[in-house]
Amino acid sequence: MYDWNKGFTLDFDLHSGHSKGAKSTTRLLSQMRGMYMDDAAFDKLAASDDPLVYEFYELGAPNHAGDVAAGTSIVYPGKVGKEYFMTKGHFHTIEDTAEAYYTLSGEGYMLTENKAGDWVAHPISAGQMVYVPKGYAHRSINTGNTPLVTFFAFRGDAGHDYGTIEQKGFRKLVIEEGGKPVIIDNPKWEEK
Amino acid sequence: MYDWNKGFTLDFDLHSGHSKGAKSTTRLLSQMRGMYMDDAAFDKLAASDDPLVYEFYELGAPNHAGDVAAGTSIVYPGKVGKEYFMTKGHFHTIEDTAEAYYTLSGEGYMLTENKAGDWVAHPISAGQMVYVPKGYAHRSINTGNTPLVTFFAFRGDAGHDYGTIEQKGFRKLVIEEGGKPVIIDNPKWEEK
Repeated sequence: MYDWNKGFTLDFDLHSGHSKGAKSTTRLLSQMRGMYMDDAAFDKLAASDDPLVYEFYELGAPNHAGDVAAGTSIVYPGKVGKEYFMTKGHFHTIEDTAEAYYTLSGEGYMLTENKAGDWVAHPISAGQMVYVPKGYAHRSINTGNTPLVTFFAFRGDAGHDYGTIEQKGFRKLVIEEGGKPVIIDNPKWEEK
Repeated sequence: MYDWNKGFTLDFDLHSGHSKGAKSTTRLLSQMRGMYMDDAAFDKLAASDDPLVYEFYELGAPNHAGDVAAGTSIVYPGKVGKEYFMTKGHFHTIEDTAEAYYTLSGEGYMLTENKAGDWVAHPISAGQMVYVPKGYAHRSINTGNTPLVTFFAFRGDAGHDYGTIEQKGFRKLVIEEGGKPVIIDNPKWEEK
């Protein structure tokens, strides 16, 4: 569909992040079982509404170290209990590859951690670029009332390792307390 | 200044592309001698006004295949004779590396060509991403009345080869005829 050898153009709305010329990959809440702190709140929401938590445009860049995988990611506003809507988060399969995100609208955090245990929660909002360094898993978290929209770019062959986070989770969570986002230890993290 | 190992955030205005937290690299017209078709018009404008033609934010990404060089580029509106303001244009030193651009505002072309002689002039405008494939030199050309602003991302170690284009130019030029941009053969190209 896209000519990675001759080049191409593709639209992404500057505010919503949506593309008329591409199809997004969607993640419903029910596809994130076990990833939120409050299982009862998760079960209730997944069984009733099963909201769209996020979507992203994955264009299928060649699995080549010289190509660039780029597109937009849209995390919707919402909470599971006290915990804000977020992406699954992942390491790159080739761990030693970074990723640049540029925030088009909304606000939240880019939560990052590496396998040695170092973590950083970068606050992001419209007009902020965030650099996710080599070796860090990363998850977008929407702490606002509007979609959190980012344009992302990373190496075409980097790949996604979702399994590590699905099994262990992140060390930290971002929840709402007193109307504000706070960063807490993930109570489920030590169990595994 | 930027922590490429722990990550960082940096502001880029969503419309103007400017950053409060970083310093841009500027290109005055006088730094582009020989690159425009009309030498008389060039000399006159460079000697009088010497306008700022473009600027970009180069953050100094590590020279590492896993890092990502990202930032914004701003090409101002204007012409040298009939020829629109543009960037110098370059190949990557590691030619086999692509680049993704996302247009934040303005309109124009991303002119691309490879060493085998293939060329494509991709029309771009606010909200359009353009993919510059591996092996293609690329130049941003502003055909509008407002700054042409893009967010770019490519491999940290790709490097810039400006010399090839400085010596030979691009095969094609974009000039204004009858109030519209048209693509013509570069009359200086065959000479070299």
